[in-house]
Amino acid sequence: MLEQSPLGAIVVNNKISNVFPAGDGVRDAEQVCEIVADALDLPSKDYVLPSSTGVIGWRLPVDEMIASIPDAVKNLQDRTALPAAEAIMTTDLYPKVRRSDLGHPFSLVGIAKGAGMVEPNLATMLVFLMTDLDLPQERLQSMLAKATDESFNCISIDSDQSTSDTVVLVSSGAVRPDNEEVVRAFESELERVCANLAADVVRNGEGVRHVLRVNVTGAPTDTIARGIGKAVVNSPLTKCAFAGNDPNVGRVIGAVGSYVGRTCGDREECAQLMANCTVDIAGETVFDHGNFTLSTEKEARLVTQLRDAELYVSAPIVDASVPSAHFAPTLEYPPHDRCVDIDVRFDAEGEEETTRGRATILGSDLTHEYVTENADYRS
Amino acid sequence: MLEQSPLGAIVVNNKISNVFPAGDGVRDAEQVCEIVADALDLPSKDYVLPSSTGVIGWRLPVDEMIASIPDAVKNLQDRTALPAAEAIMTTDLYPKVRRSDLGHPFSLVGIAKGAGMVEPNLATMLVFLMTDLDLPQERLQSMLAKATDESFNCISIDSDQSTSDTVVLVSSGAVRPDNEEVVRAFESELERVCANLAADVVRNGEGVRHVLRVNVTGAPTDTIARGIGKAVVNSPLTKCAFAGNDPNVGRVIGAVGSYVGRTCGDREECAQLMANCTVDIAGETVFDHGNFTLSTEKEARLVTQLRDAELYVSAPIVDASVPSAHFAPTLEYPPHDRCVDIDVRFDAEGEEETTRGRATILGSDLTHEYVTENADYRS
Repeated sequence: MLEQSPLGAIVVNNKISNVFPAGDGVRDAEQVCEIVADALDLPSKDYVLPSSTGVIGWRLPVDEMIASIPDAVKNLQDRTALPAAEAIMTTDLYPKVRRSDLGHPFSLVGIAKGAGMVEPNLATMLVFLMTDLDLPQERLQSMLAKATDESFNCISIDSDQSTSDTVVLVSSGAVRPDNEEVVRAFESELERVCANLAADVVRNGEGVRHVLRVNVTGAPTDTIARGIGKAVVNSPLTKCAFAGNDPNVGRVIGAVGSYVGRTCGDREECAQLMANCTVDIAGETVFDHGNFTLSTEKEARLVTQLRDAELYVSAPIVDASVPSAHFAPTLEYPPHDRCVDIDVRFDAEGEEETTRGRATILGSDLTHEYVTENADYRS
Repeated sequence: MLEQSPLGAIVVNNKISNVFPAGDGVRDAEQVCEIVADALDLPSKDYVLPSSTGVIGWRLPVDEMIASIPDAVKNLQDRTALPAAEAIMTTDLYPKVRRSDLGHPFSLVGIAKGAGMVEPNLATMLVFLMTDLDLPQERLQSMLAKATDESFNCISIDSDQSTSDTVVLVSSGAVRPDNEEVVRAFESELERVCANLAADVVRNGEGVRHVLRVNVTGAPTDTIARGIGKAVVNSPLTKCAFAGNDPNVGRVIGAVGSYVGRTCGDREECAQLMANCTVDIAGETVFDHGNFTLSTEKEARLVTQLRDAELYVSAPIVDASVPSAHFAPTLEYPPHDRCVDIDVRFDAEGEEETTRGRATILGSDLTHEYVTENADYRS
């Protein structure tokens, strides 16, 4: 995840992703890096990290990129990351910037790009984290790996892994940590900034109208807990139901049961696990130790909860000249706190629940906006 | 897959799927079967096979079902399966009936229900196959397993496995096969009927406007070939692109490469496999031995091909009183032959291509109709 040589600059382009290019793509990227290194008086192109996002399968427009470098250099900022966060947006609706709490001797700022083709491992997601804390590279590397695993690896917009993802942490090394406490504070801030940026990526996902947060506890292992959470947020039918404010809880349980059946041992073990399973949606218990506990009143309350959790209400923009419908969000910025909580608990017989597998996975609904955006991405 | 005891009747209901009911559901089903057995003068409820499809998590309306049994008995047919094929439809647009070629000493007729939550293993898909050929149960079982594996297990509408799928083959035993040739003819007809019904299920999938047929050849194994095909038809971004007649070939290659990277060994083995990979879409070579071979002219031709392969052109029905858009197909019955062919070939070095893994997977695009149908399934 971290470059071996010191870095002097990161150059990012959108529109075209530099993928599978069999030699040409590497040469294209190196050519751009060389010009950037020259423009910034860096010793060589090895001091520049290239980063591309966009359509797969086309070559970078190197000449146009080189022509724009003088302007980019002129506009470099040293007080704010916001213009950079805005500049790396593609289908993102909002810039994503997060920083560590004030009051620490170090500073830590992160920006992220990402809206679709998001299921890390590997997401069309670019995350750049910048700090001034001077720590050995291996230490930063292991902290970043841990923070990434619990944040960016726990989200999914559309279950489509990307060919190009990047999470970079760079340090100027300007602030020497006085003691281990500062290092621990940095580690915890790094995890928080990554978690917040990951949530921002989901909240700003293509066409997202509901953010789904699946909390799994008491699963046989952390890996299974994560698999169950992913199974729920990646089920197209579950995603569509939430888009329509339809508490179709059978689909949620179906996704859980289907994953458990594929993963958790023989028929009897799976049945036992499901018999110990309880699921709450938005605070309502809909499945209690293997039994559905639905009622018409509970459903009505759930519909209200789902409506309240909607980031915005959408309606199609109909244009007689285009055959499909177009949609656009009706708000300037998504509410930060709205979320549909789905709690999946397995009662552990004779075991401490805290010793068993847990995971929190963030995902989204599947809306007309998502289809519109991706059916005609490039027009 | 096959019942052990002889069967006298199959009773199917839609609207409510009898799932996870912890005792009650089994009792409900048995009660219905008992009344059906009585009505048909069958020795016991064990002669009746129950089959349910619909919303998960609610109890069967047993009283209403029992009340309707006399009418159902009165309407039993002995000349045509069409009314049965129509009666088991839920969100299906069209009844699905297939029969074996004429000219054989036996007859074989199959009907299918299935439109969404379709990725067998397990699909909300009910398939009933009826024949008069008298073969030992184990023989029928193994033939059915093979036919199912190559047909219903090779389709995916939405990658959502269902909790309730059924493929049943029943025989009256009226026709004794004279020789092995008749048996082989039956086996081949069974495979053809299953393949055709599977194609019908996809062609009639929820909101399907393009049928995608992925042919994978030269893969390391059949399992990997099948995995690659499924990865392509289950990629939401690929599905959306086809819905919009957008030949976003990078997404197809991304889906292939992502699956290969997860499954086919170390980094070098995967890179070698992709370097031997060639992909044609609708007859146009878009990826040739690891290199994209895109051009503006080729893209324009592909757009035309995708438009021609569309089952129907759709536009939203806008009703000011509902917040989301509604869509409906503009045709009475889907054209049987339209399909987007995606050929994924791996050159096998020093091996006969025919000895390597192959699969044909049928899938569909992801459209506004799918979202509409599943966002508000029950209203």
